[in-house]
Amino acid sequence: MRIDNRNYRTIWPADKEQGPILIIDQRKLPHEFVIEELHTVSDAVVAIRDMHVRGAGLIGATAAFGMYLAAIGAEPGRLNEALQEGGRMLDNSRPTARNLKWAVDRILTAAALGDNEDDQKRIIFKTACEIADEDASFCKSLGLHGLKIIKELSEKKDGKTINILTHCNAGWLAFVDYGSATAPIYAARDAGIDVHVWVDETRPWNQGSKLTAWELQQENIPCTLITDNAGGHLMQKGMVDMMIVGTDRTTHTGDVANKIGTYLKALAARDNDIPFYVALPSSTFDWEMDSGHDIPIEERSGDEVTAISGMTKEGTVATVQLTAPGTRALNYSFDITPARLITGLITERGITAANREAIHRLFPEK
Amino acid sequence: MRIDNRNYRTIWPADKEQGPILIIDQRKLPHEFVIEELHTVSDAVVAIRDMHVRGAGLIGATAAFGMYLAAIGAEPGRLNEALQEGGRMLDNSRPTARNLKWAVDRILTAAALGDNEDDQKRIIFKTACEIADEDASFCKSLGLHGLKIIKELSEKKDGKTINILTHCNAGWLAFVDYGSATAPIYAARDAGIDVHVWVDETRPWNQGSKLTAWELQQENIPCTLITDNAGGHLMQKGMVDMMIVGTDRTTHTGDVANKIGTYLKALAARDNDIPFYVALPSSTFDWEMDSGHDIPIEERSGDEVTAISGMTKEGTVATVQLTAPGTRALNYSFDITPARLITGLITERGITAANREAIHRLFPEK
Repeated sequence: MRIDNRNYRTIWPADKEQGPILIIDQRKLPHEFVIEELHTVSDAVVAIRDMHVRGAGLIGATAAFGMYLAAIGAEPGRLNEALQEGGRMLDNSRPTARNLKWAVDRILTAAALGDNEDDQKRIIFKTACEIADEDASFCKSLGLHGLKIIKELSEKKDGKTINILTHCNAGWLAFVDYGSATAPIYAARDAGIDVHVWVDETRPWNQGSKLTAWELQQENIPCTLITDNAGGHLMQKGMVDMMIVGTDRTTHTGDVANKIGTYLKALAARDNDIPFYVALPSSTFDWEMDSGHDIPIEERSGDEVTAISGMTKEGTVATVQLTAPGTRALNYSFDITPARLITGLITERGITAANREAIHRLFPEK
Repeated sequence: MRIDNRNYRTIWPADKEQGPILIIDQRKLPHEFVIEELHTVSDAVVAIRDMHVRGAGLIGATAAFGMYLAAIGAEPGRLNEALQEGGRMLDNSRPTARNLKWAVDRILTAAALGDNEDDQKRIIFKTACEIADEDASFCKSLGLHGLKIIKELSEKKDGKTINILTHCNAGWLAFVDYGSATAPIYAARDAGIDVHVWVDETRPWNQGSKLTAWELQQENIPCTLITDNAGGHLMQKGMVDMMIVGTDRTTHTGDVANKIGTYLKALAARDNDIPFYVALPSSTFDWEMDSGHDIPIEERSGDEVTAISGMTKEGTVATVQLTAPGTRALNYSFDITPARLITGLITERGITAANREAIHRLFPEK
């Protein structure tokens, strides 16, 4: 997608054949646009854990390229050990994200087919690139499926603006390209449908105000920032036509782990008869887990709640303390939206109800 | 209540017999403790409109003392005009708050009984002081009624900690003393019950992180700050025993206008079978309005969402921009929690169900 009218992905190898791996350091957005080089698997782990990159698909792609960095950093004759160790480090870098394990497992399976270490390294690089390409193409496909829903709503409203509320950033910045929740929005824009996005601020990390609003502005999609508190009121007033959010892990029974606060919006959508959709590439499904309540929920530092950074009048980025000294904060990153509150899951294969039978009907090989 | 172990109210006349009127400038908390003098009715209007003071009861008391300042500023022979004009200014200073009109009307009614302008001024000062005293004593009373609920929960949990979630600041800083939502908590502490408060940050003005957390710390009540997004997850995990919030206006049919985001928490409380109480002195009831949807909802500047102030490392208070230039924000201050989601209303006369019949049974004179 576009930044200052130039096309970017969120992660890419410096060269078609080799590393280092380049990412956009998303901690700096929207105030600074900084490209960072990852040279080692540890660089990739830090980038994921400290949120230089974030979002389901992008975490998966970073883990895949991280495995490639683990491979090229391995001592001769010790590639498999390096991959096992790198995989463990990457898989543990954030607990809730499903795409991590999915990407690591896929690299390990592919690497096992190589004839020798050089061949294995080639396979790993190729597979990591495939994972990134596939993430982008899955997002593009799910966007076209999601477009149908928006189109129907637009026809019902005689072409009047469709107001879509989203929470956090499940935009192209959270994937390799296009995004999950935003892909149907970009597709609707391309189809000439009049869309407007309500962007939840998304405390405490402010992915909405820092990333989603910025990303949509770069793409010229009309959007308005609101606090996380506001969505229910807008729904009561008829100002929201649908919700689309992303997910960090969705059980094969349809329970959705997503950014903390998603559950509250799903409750409000239900209370106001507003369709609530979750968009995800199939790499985000957890095919083993039967209940969302078993999904591990990341707890991050309370400092993310008590302090915040932004741009001063002088044009420098500064961190300010929001609370009195000694204020204690608890900071869970995700919550679980139970399947019963979800209108549908938008995947690269089509839209499915959020229940075991329907999901497995769409993915019969699982 | 206490600040640095000294007792304060949130508003008081400089002298037992006359002004100026003193307030705590709450915009500066918790970083600075500044007492401000109000000399004219315009000072009072600015203090309310720009949120030097805020909260149902305190806005009412400030309006009452504002009427006194209008009276002493009136040209001889023009007291009634000055009161009408001052009342109109005060009543329009914030649209949602019910206590404004209640206080202005009470002062006007009392002033009409004076024999001459000097007598009227005396009556107005006395009535304003009564309104402030009554606000404090009503809060204290409702605290004792609310205590019964907490006591029952504590007995059910064999004396284990009772976790109470509150949104915004309906603490003593929002009233003249004690607070509404916090009064039962202070009463529980005094009764030796083990309480812990989850404090919603309350974007965009951060009344939770700036005021409630600070107020509770000053009173040694254990509390933990959370983002507004987190409450639903804590409820799902069994970490919340009850909710108590305040209200800026409650219809006599039981619909509650309170800080934006309250509705989302009420939905989550219902979904998790958690009691959801609203605490209010009867001055906050709107006896004419039949539906919450008719309550005017204040819209404030989007700048409150896109920028925030806090304490820098250097120890100065600075404002930082959170968004990219040009990001548009919409900022409604309140939402409506429908009566059907409310377990009970805690008033100075006792606890009532949130419906017309029960409310009028408790206040038969209305």
